[in-house]
Amino acid sequence: MLIVGELINASRKQIADFIKDRNVAEIQKVAKDQWEAGADYIDVNAGIFVGEEAELLRWLVQIVQEVVDAPCSIDSPDPQAIEAALSVHKGIAMINSISLEKERFEKLLPIIAGSDLKVIALCMSDEGMPETTEERVKVADKLINALVQNNIKEENIYVDPLVQPIATNHIFGKEFLNAIDEITKRFPTVHTMCGLSNVSYGLPNRKFLNQTFAVMAIAKGLDGLIINPLDKEMMARIIAAETLIGRDLYCSNYLKAYRDKKFEF
Amino acid sequence: MLIVGELINASRKQIADFIKDRNVAEIQKVAKDQWEAGADYIDVNAGIFVGEEAELLRWLVQIVQEVVDAPCSIDSPDPQAIEAALSVHKGIAMINSISLEKERFEKLLPIIAGSDLKVIALCMSDEGMPETTEERVKVADKLINALVQNNIKEENIYVDPLVQPIATNHIFGKEFLNAIDEITKRFPTVHTMCGLSNVSYGLPNRKFLNQTFAVMAIAKGLDGLIINPLDKEMMARIIAAETLIGRDLYCSNYLKAYRDKKFEF
Repeated sequence: MLIVGELINASRKQIADFIKDRNVAEIQKVAKDQWEAGADYIDVNAGIFVGEEAELLRWLVQIVQEVVDAPCSIDSPDPQAIEAALSVHKGIAMINSISLEKERFEKLLPIIAGSDLKVIALCMSDEGMPETTEERVKVADKLINALVQNNIKEENIYVDPLVQPIATNHIFGKEFLNAIDEITKRFPTVHTMCGLSNVSYGLPNRKFLNQTFAVMAIAKGLDGLIINPLDKEMMARIIAAETLIGRDLYCSNYLKAYRDKKFEF
Repeated sequence: MLIVGELINASRKQIADFIKDRNVAEIQKVAKDQWEAGADYIDVNAGIFVGEEAELLRWLVQIVQEVVDAPCSIDSPDPQAIEAALSVHKGIAMINSISLEKERFEKLLPIIAGSDLKVIALCMSDEGMPETTEERVKVADKLINALVQNNIKEENIYVDPLVQPIATNHIFGKEFLNAIDEITKRFPTVHTMCGLSNVSYGLPNRKFLNQTFAVMAIAKGLDGLIINPLDKEMMARIIAAETLIGRDLYCSNYLKAYRDKKFEF
């Protein structure tokens, strides 16, 4: 399971303030905390700072990688901002994200074509956000093919089928989960990935629902998550689910997590 | 989701003592607690009392149904004990359980053939316990066909693919989950059902693993569980999982459970 730590995102008030203040210590603390909690990638997003995004993303990558030995997930639709961030990035970054929307696809393609970058591929097209399993799989199919034709390896593609709130339509969770299942079966080399908190939008007790949904998505084949890795129970549920779905030889990862007290929260 | 409350089982020391003492009040309390916690069926098992099983099962059914308005799951492989229990049972009971083992199948068939009884059908044959998805589906297929040929309606069959401990083989959870998926797809009218605590045998933190596994099985299509309904977090996870997989129109069951404080434990 690939974990992307989602916290360094300027749409969060506290992070926006840290960025405004150029508060290196606090941002580095958020990066380090996420890394120590098990994040494989640290997401960086400065999208709200119009006109400054490129400069800020570059700065975020630099200060994050000063304190953690992990790659970043560069969270922007703007090719210039991504290029600026990549210019200082150490290791192989993840691009968050491309989609099948014509403008976005064409702008980002030159950066990733033929590269070893990891890329999150959103199941979104100019026809809007898909609602059914079939619509998601159709967009995923087109997007994967377009990326592969541009010399992006299947194993570097992380398809996000985009979850929608079940409070809007009670079948939205099921349609998403079945898309994970279908994409995993059709493209065994491609990864799937998602941020899942949208599923619980508008309902009470969201953390509980999100944890439960993560476990269900893992049962369906999901192997990447954009989450808050400081949610200890979420991380513990992911470890347990991975062990239960057969990704943990001799249950050794589970037993290590138990010894490390990761099930105490 | 059909919940069978598993607690009134003589293999549990406390229950064995209650039965020995003919302690009606305590057994009725266990029945009532489970029913109030959401059990649809109350399992009754007196298997350890050799020679007295028929008399005790009949007595258990009587005292349980004095205090709860729910059917029982008659937990025995012995046709005489089952007949005794059924002779006093009110409503439509569940038989726990038949299997493809020749002797068991032939002994129990006369009781259930052409009846409206619910029946748990274990994926077990004279060749032993299946290990892979394919072996489970093969036994399920034969068993369902044999039952249907004997005028048992598909909607009254609850197939239990039999989970084995992941501590023995790390793929046992996955093989079980995929069997649920496959059986659900092949036989959309047939139900699936399981007791799942075996999955965590030999590992620490079993309740946590069992809850997580229940959620994964629901994602794969499971619609029946034999559990301890007094495990509040288990019941809450089941409610959340059912809402997330699209079995809860307008999320109304989830919202009611929230108002009823079922997510506080």
